[in-house]
Amino acid sequence: MDVNVFLFPDFETLDAFGPVEVLGRIEQYTLCYVSMNGGLITSRQGTQILTKSVDEADYSGILLLPGGQGTRCLVDDAAFIRTLTGISQQAMYCLAVCTGSALLAKTGLLDNRKATSNKKAFAWVKSTNGNVTWIEKARWVVDEKYYTSSGISAGIDMTLGFIADRFGNKKAEEIAEAIEYIWNTDSTNDQFST
Amino acid sequence: MDVNVFLFPDFETLDAFGPVEVLGRIEQYTLCYVSMNGGLITSRQGTQILTKSVDEADYSGILLLPGGQGTRCLVDDAAFIRTLTGISQQAMYCLAVCTGSALLAKTGLLDNRKATSNKKAFAWVKSTNGNVTWIEKARWVVDEKYYTSSGISAGIDMTLGFIADRFGNKKAEEIAEAIEYIWNTDSTNDQFST
Repeated sequence: MDVNVFLFPDFETLDAFGPVEVLGRIEQYTLCYVSMNGGLITSRQGTQILTKSVDEADYSGILLLPGGQGTRCLVDDAAFIRTLTGISQQAMYCLAVCTGSALLAKTGLLDNRKATSNKKAFAWVKSTNGNVTWIEKARWVVDEKYYTSSGISAGIDMTLGFIADRFGNKKAEEIAEAIEYIWNTDSTNDQFST
Repeated sequence: MDVNVFLFPDFETLDAFGPVEVLGRIEQYTLCYVSMNGGLITSRQGTQILTKSVDEADYSGILLLPGGQGTRCLVDDAAFIRTLTGISQQAMYCLAVCTGSALLAKTGLLDNRKATSNKKAFAWVKSTNGNVTWIEKARWVVDEKYYTSSGISAGIDMTLGFIADRFGNKKAEEIAEAIEYIWNTDSTNDQFST
């Protein structure tokens, strides 16, 4: 099963690579890095990542969508949102980290669903779509195939939660141990919400 | 001040990009990605990163060295170790994550110094240099300009510790809050050591 990491200019580096570290430890998953036009994509932290064009991937598996400063203009980019809508519909699971939730919300696919996002950007994210039930106090939120997380590092907790849901708690705990990560297992225990 | 992230084939993705997320939040730091010959470097998780050649960077600032499977052959690569020795000597600070400590140990610069590494690979790391005082129970270890961390995620804790040492605890706490990371502030509290 492919994990498509959908990158865009000015994405937040750890939003993508925290979850990648966890997902990369599942033998059945193959990581692919895609973007609208392919080629090099530069993160907020100046990392240049080589991506395939969005047309070249198989979206039947898992979609991983980071957040970051780049989301601020992409929420108003009709072509990007149209593409994201199509690939999110095809995906078996959609994982959005941080303000990646705002992009996912713009597709309309989160309407009448629960979701969360970064606490520092929460008011803005909420403003992008009022039809979503935004949960402020949550490390991550699951609504059927849609997983959304709080800010940046919370993406690691969410992805371990996703692995626990698919493969059981023991597998998630094994991965946390292997990457020496102290997993915050309780999705409702969010010390960064006000 | 430049932060040079020294990449090599099969480096562990989060070893580099956890610390990058923290260091990228210091205005005075500029992140550079370098490798022995420049060009694309592929991580263990299949991420392809564009790097500059090692000859093109200024090493007077901070060196960040990830670990990962790629270190297993690099400890025996004389040209790599010679280059690493030179740039580590030039650097004001050297930060090695996970099995990156083994590479740094091979330079001899950790001789008669304290250091730590990944708990899953500890016996191997110790075997690379018996003149280092290897500290098994530590989230991270500081010995003058040399910072070494335990496995993968511990690099985030170490880098926040590095920021606290340079800019004060408040700054490190602000960054942890901004990235919604629950910082394990006690470098001696290592729940992954046996």
